[in-house]
Amino acid sequence: MAADPSGAAGRSPEDEAAAFFRSAPPLRGLDRVAGELSGFVARHSAAAGRGGGGLAGVVCITSGGTTVPLEQRCVRYIDNFSSGQRGAASTEYFLKAGYAVIFIYRRGSKQPYCRFLPEDSFLDFFELGEESEIKVPDSHATVVKTAISNYRKAIDEGLLLKLPFTTIFEYLQLLQMASTAMSCLGHHGMFYLAAAVSDFYVPWESMAKHKIESASGPLNMQLNQVPKMLFILRKHWDPSAFCVSFKLETDPDILLQKAEVALRKYGMNVVVANELANYKDVVVMVTGNGRTTVRRPGKEDDVEEQLIDLLVKMHSEHIMQLNQDHHSCTG
Amino acid sequence: MAADPSGAAGRSPEDEAAAFFRSAPPLRGLDRVAGELSGFVARHSAAAGRGGGGLAGVVCITSGGTTVPLEQRCVRYIDNFSSGQRGAASTEYFLKAGYAVIFIYRRGSKQPYCRFLPEDSFLDFFELGEESEIKVPDSHATVVKTAISNYRKAIDEGLLLKLPFTTIFEYLQLLQMASTAMSCLGHHGMFYLAAAVSDFYVPWESMAKHKIESASGPLNMQLNQVPKMLFILRKHWDPSAFCVSFKLETDPDILLQKAEVALRKYGMNVVVANELANYKDVVVMVTGNGRTTVRRPGKEDDVEEQLIDLLVKMHSEHIMQLNQDHHSCTG
Repeated sequence: MAADPSGAAGRSPEDEAAAFFRSAPPLRGLDRVAGELSGFVARHSAAAGRGGGGLAGVVCITSGGTTVPLEQRCVRYIDNFSSGQRGAASTEYFLKAGYAVIFIYRRGSKQPYCRFLPEDSFLDFFELGEESEIKVPDSHATVVKTAISNYRKAIDEGLLLKLPFTTIFEYLQLLQMASTAMSCLGHHGMFYLAAAVSDFYVPWESMAKHKIESASGPLNMQLNQVPKMLFILRKHWDPSAFCVSFKLETDPDILLQKAEVALRKYGMNVVVANELANYKDVVVMVTGNGRTTVRRPGKEDDVEEQLIDLLVKMHSEHIMQLNQDHHSCTG
Repeated sequence: MAADPSGAAGRSPEDEAAAFFRSAPPLRGLDRVAGELSGFVARHSAAAGRGGGGLAGVVCITSGGTTVPLEQRCVRYIDNFSSGQRGAASTEYFLKAGYAVIFIYRRGSKQPYCRFLPEDSFLDFFELGEESEIKVPDSHATVVKTAISNYRKAIDEGLLLKLPFTTIFEYLQLLQMASTAMSCLGHHGMFYLAAAVSDFYVPWESMAKHKIESASGPLNMQLNQVPKMLFILRKHWDPSAFCVSFKLETDPDILLQKAEVALRKYGMNVVVANELANYKDVVVMVTGNGRTTVRRPGKEDDVEEQLIDLLVKMHSEHIMQLNQDHHSCTG
């Protein structure tokens, strides 16, 4: 498997991004997705930022890990660990705070209002009653009922748009489409980029067509760096949005330093730093004004509750400072 | 990331297998799993092969894809595409045919009796009634009720043991434990190895400890071949069992030839050949006596129904030919 012979050294980020998208297989259902996105944004643009009965804003949440196919007819791929727990929980809290949410998620990852479900034992939540009616044991009834009711409300009120991806190619195309569609919201738009995005990929055209043969000794692979799309999003796709990105490391010694670098390099409003070992317990919000540590109060609580509370306040202050009327969006 | 410096060239399969297991991090809950396996086998060994009210046999079904971690504190890994659809469907048909099933499955993959569930919209199957009772819309009621009832039956009768894995290290340790535990069943045991198993891996001790840095250009990786454990299973772990393995290819031109090679090389009773493009529609059973093509009759049917029907007959003839009393198993 050869890497892109043209390489990435010395090219501008824009050139690298263009080369990546040229290499990517086109997203399935592209026109339908584009229509859903512009319709969703247009429907909420009038209400966004009005306060009172209006929306607090529109947030695009990305969630779960992207895959990098190693073969065009994909049997093998490189994946990034992410259950999607963070993105799913955050979606619930943003909806509760009055946002409309575009939820860009990895197929099969955790879903809002379903986080309590054990992955593999759906049927353990149900039993048949005497007249073979479906029953939920009392121990689970409250949690299942609350989930159904909150989910129905979000869907029925049209406040949640769910768009799935699997590969890095699909993910970055969706992110480009969402941010382009949201640019008309100005400062009322927010990005909350919790997905675990691959750093390396194999360009589509240099990829093995068929399953890689296993008969002939060790496998050597060379992977290219994925272009830094946060930079492109910030500079070209949606320069006015409030941008929150995440930095995950396994080594705590380099985490905050890397978060600071990302903050400056990509012009983020907030970088949320977290460690693999305790990402459910504690995160550090890194901003231009300093650092804020957020801990969950107890094992039954979500660290996302306080995190989103703080982000919503920052976003709202950011809008007030800029006192910007948002542009109009047409569907 | 350096490959195992000792390499695999020139070593016996046994040596390669031993080196792999030495390299593997120990399975969590190893003693508990060993106890569950020997208890399950002992409970069913008396009934296995009795006919009449007895069991048809005990089958170990593997399902879903294994991962290969690229870092010890795992953020990135190589994965094999597999929804687990084949293994989950086959589990249902083996249970229906009177087998006890050890289901070794990838976490998050498809589960028996839940295959109908769309991955990401669990809550779309439920609504709240007027007195906020949980209801299933009529369109889904039959399928959900049948699922709950069949699943409960298998669990209540103790006929289904579910053991999850994620990595290639966990998978091969579970397979070794299951086959060792099942060896006392003699010809009444069956293996149905539908999992998509990695061909390449990075030995644990030569793996990066922390997340691989993305700052410094392309990534070069060298991966070692995973030892051919089918050979070891057949020769050492459980030589008397009836063994069915799978061969998946994307290129139809080499598929049957590779299935024939696997049949002879690993001493399988059956190799089921399937293509990625149509694996739900058609499979070819390759045996020492020739090939049998199995097609599903319609889009609503499972190809696994007829496949398992044929395999159960072959297994039963195999037992009769050998007319073997099975050994006794103690829990």
